[in-house]
Amino acid sequence: MPTQHTVRSFDKELNCLSKKIAEMGTHAVHMVERSIIAIVHDDKKLAKQVIADDIFLDEAERKIDEEAILIIARRQPMAVDLREIIGAIRISVDLERIGDMGKNIAKRTAILSDVRQADPFYHGLEAFAALALKQLNEVLDAYACCSLGRIDAVREHDDEIDSMYTSLFRELLTYMLEDPCNITVCTHLLFCAKNIERIGDHATNIAETVHYVITGIYPALERPKDDQTYRLGAGK
Amino acid sequence: MPTQHTVRSFDKELNCLSKKIAEMGTHAVHMVERSIIAIVHDDKKLAKQVIADDIFLDEAERKIDEEAILIIARRQPMAVDLREIIGAIRISVDLERIGDMGKNIAKRTAILSDVRQADPFYHGLEAFAALALKQLNEVLDAYACCSLGRIDAVREHDDEIDSMYTSLFRELLTYMLEDPCNITVCTHLLFCAKNIERIGDHATNIAETVHYVITGIYPALERPKDDQTYRLGAGK
Repeated sequence: MPTQHTVRSFDKELNCLSKKIAEMGTHAVHMVERSIIAIVHDDKKLAKQVIADDIFLDEAERKIDEEAILIIARRQPMAVDLREIIGAIRISVDLERIGDMGKNIAKRTAILSDVRQADPFYHGLEAFAALALKQLNEVLDAYACCSLGRIDAVREHDDEIDSMYTSLFRELLTYMLEDPCNITVCTHLLFCAKNIERIGDHATNIAETVHYVITGIYPALERPKDDQTYRLGAGK
Repeated sequence: MPTQHTVRSFDKELNCLSKKIAEMGTHAVHMVERSIIAIVHDDKKLAKQVIADDIFLDEAERKIDEEAILIIARRQPMAVDLREIIGAIRISVDLERIGDMGKNIAKRTAILSDVRQADPFYHGLEAFAALALKQLNEVLDAYACCSLGRIDAVREHDDEIDSMYTSLFRELLTYMLEDPCNITVCTHLLFCAKNIERIGDHATNIAETVHYVITGIYPALERPKDDQTYRLGAGK
């Protein structure tokens, strides 16, 4: 989120902060993408790499925190600059959690390898992850180019994630009810689906933070939310 | 986390911030406690109240953000004061998410009411929630009295949460494998258990933030983590 200041080194510091956020974003997206490839294609080696890669986000989050505090102490920024710095702290928390979601999915690769099921079990998860990552990439682009219009568009697509999550939940529950042999694999896939749904939530959190950074006000608290899985019973 | 300053109104502002965090903490604990009562005792009215109560934490988180930014802009604090303010922002995010966990558990009360099972299905969840809430209360107390020793003790008990989560996951999976009629209720209870495990994670996050506020450095990144559920297959 580039801005212009009379103090050029302050600009540099702020740009450095948003560059670090962009790096975290790229890393988080890449982790989630590879975790899905690992679980869908039963690639345990890739899963291990994803799990090991998580440390980058943990460290990056802390570095952003420390730098943000140093900038505030040194520059005593006001208004939009201060919001930008606080925004970076908040966004780094969401990106670190998205990395955790990728790590969690990757961790399930080993157990799913032992109880491997046919490909159709994994297709829904793949498509769902693609949708959540599209949302996340969109919000990261909108943050980079500081576009309020694009940011608000992300929030409006949140219900697509909820509706796809509900379908996937229903599908996996059906497999479990059809044959108890599917219970273990589907239980783990349900958790993966939940992780992906949370990636969508984090993308929306980031969108709300960016909206706040740009405008100084948070968007209305009630976002559209249509997760029907809390009402799904057996065979429904 | 009370501190002393020459500028008395600054003290007031910082105390006001930590008072708001304490209020959020009490509210979050209360939400989770009642969500468990609702689901265990099939109390749909209580579940609705919990869901409605979540707005308090959403609003409180935003208020803390806004006040923190105002204080930074007005007082230009340094060192521990600045860390305390940034810490309040981070802790409020965790407390808001803990409230979400309570709301998520409460939301499952209605569906579990339709497919009610015998009491033993719920005992594990009740005990697990009690343990997570004990951790959360401990970290909130340690924050209030600014005790580094008590904060670090919380981190050491994190593995108790993981081990209890693993047992509960195993127990619920066994019920599902025994009888397909249990699949729906146990799937929802597994998600409740996961929510409680995340409450434990948030408590640990808060402990790490408080450690940072007090000492200026984050504790070592690798916390003890022994969640075995990623390795649990059918019948294991």
